[in-house]
Amino acid sequence: MGRLVSMVEDGSPQLRQVMAALTPHAGQAHVVGITGPPGVGKSTTTNALVTELRAAGRRVGVLAVDPSSPFSGGALLGDRVRMQDHATDPGVFIRSMASRGHLGGLAWTTPQAMRVLDAAGFDVVVVETVGVGQSEVEVAGLADTTVVLMAPGLGDGIQAAKAGILEIGDLYVVNKADRDGAEQVRRELRNAIAMGERPDGSWKPPIVLTVAQSGLGLDELATELARHHAWLTETGGLAARRVRRAREEIEAIALAGLRERWDGLGHDDLDALAEAVVAGAKDPYAAADELVATATG
Amino acid sequence: MGRLVSMVEDGSPQLRQVMAALTPHAGQAHVVGITGPPGVGKSTTTNALVTELRAAGRRVGVLAVDPSSPFSGGALLGDRVRMQDHATDPGVFIRSMASRGHLGGLAWTTPQAMRVLDAAGFDVVVVETVGVGQSEVEVAGLADTTVVLMAPGLGDGIQAAKAGILEIGDLYVVNKADRDGAEQVRRELRNAIAMGERPDGSWKPPIVLTVAQSGLGLDELATELARHHAWLTETGGLAARRVRRAREEIEAIALAGLRERWDGLGHDDLDALAEAVVAGAKDPYAAADELVATATG
Repeated sequence: MGRLVSMVEDGSPQLRQVMAALTPHAGQAHVVGITGPPGVGKSTTTNALVTELRAAGRRVGVLAVDPSSPFSGGALLGDRVRMQDHATDPGVFIRSMASRGHLGGLAWTTPQAMRVLDAAGFDVVVVETVGVGQSEVEVAGLADTTVVLMAPGLGDGIQAAKAGILEIGDLYVVNKADRDGAEQVRRELRNAIAMGERPDGSWKPPIVLTVAQSGLGLDELATELARHHAWLTETGGLAARRVRRAREEIEAIALAGLRERWDGLGHDDLDALAEAVVAGAKDPYAAADELVATATG
Repeated sequence: MGRLVSMVEDGSPQLRQVMAALTPHAGQAHVVGITGPPGVGKSTTTNALVTELRAAGRRVGVLAVDPSSPFSGGALLGDRVRMQDHATDPGVFIRSMASRGHLGGLAWTTPQAMRVLDAAGFDVVVVETVGVGQSEVEVAGLADTTVVLMAPGLGDGIQAAKAGILEIGDLYVVNKADRDGAEQVRRELRNAIAMGERPDGSWKPPIVLTVAQSGLGLDELATELARHHAWLTETGGLAARRVRRAREEIEAIALAGLRERWDGLGHDDLDALAEAVVAGAKDPYAAADELVATATG
């Protein structure tokens, strides 16, 4: 399985065959996205959630996605640290993925890595993203259920996070709930959620208080995850989200394919167009038209 | 000028004509990218830099780009707060830009907004990004000169930032240099820079200590910016960076155009493909092939 995920990361040419073989077997796992600002305890919470789900007999796969690290290399060390609680448990698979820094790289690789774990029979696939930039929000939004983590005492972190994050959570977690200010974070979240527009009108995102370090509140988090999954299944929301996810994946593959095709044209062609734009001799739209015409013609 | 930037943000259909008109007049401005983790004082530093450059008689345009905010609305308030120091100065233009959450949105809009300010005759165009995710790093990397800000006492912030950020800085600033730990941050930076691989071997990135709040060190920052610009000009690096920037812009426009074309096919077609993938009846690569064939055929 690790090798299949590496093939996804590396954009292996055999991926096409691998995905063709896996696609019919996917679609059973509950895909959970976890996001939130740095310092809220995302990996601790993920670990505690794994423990909780394992106690209930569920097999869990974890993808830790780091869009802020276009330069890879740190993933393996991170895996070892993360794995220590579950190292000997065959019902758990944990893997860090660095994005390769390509446009649409994560939109392209994450759903495929999800599919690998899904088709391998994991009941729950957790996709944990590292920060709260746009790409993190997008990746977390690929899940069936998106969990947004907050914590007291982050100051600017929460402030910065608010913009994009309050629209995407199906579940909110206030972690480090034993610290001062947890109740205030919960109150702020509740107000913000009440004010925000929710695309899925009938689901009211619950707020769960946890202390991931000690496992407090993890049972409630697991219960709420299951409740959201059941709600999605009943309302048809699950199918709708998966279609959306597949659309984004198909688009990302198509765009990556086109990009590859014009990279294959040789750098000279694109460089010549770029030089003409820099010189002011050609505008970027005209250059883009020429590029598309060459690549698809 | 504000209206032209809005047209860029909104992806106006007239952009093509606007860019065709502006392209021949662009290429004079020194484009400076400023990035760094939240809390280092990016907007304070940008403001102080504007004051410093104005004192030297240079016209300055500022684009504050927030890739973590796909949902716009906050930009105008932010502009008003930012503008207060320079509100009555016609030699300064400051504008916040939210990305529209599209794939490649920033790669597409930022160079065009830069071109608007460049063609309007600003001597320096500062592109300040909000966080340090991959998109922020990419946007800052579009500049002629990339400035990476750090500050003492950020703990995790610097840790998290290190991965992507130490490869891209042409200049490093340790802001809040009057605080404890500034010297240590400088030392850490110096070691990290010394260890890292630099694509431009002959430029050794300087580290400038500033207290942006009081303007301390801003003269040195301005001097180092000018020195890097002179070095780029002499070595041909300026042209190389601009060609790279234009390449990314052309690619982003081409991809956005293709995407628009298949959105124009009607959601039904893409939805049908996505549903087939979700059902396991078609793999995502085959679906992507069909999409490209329909859009370009």
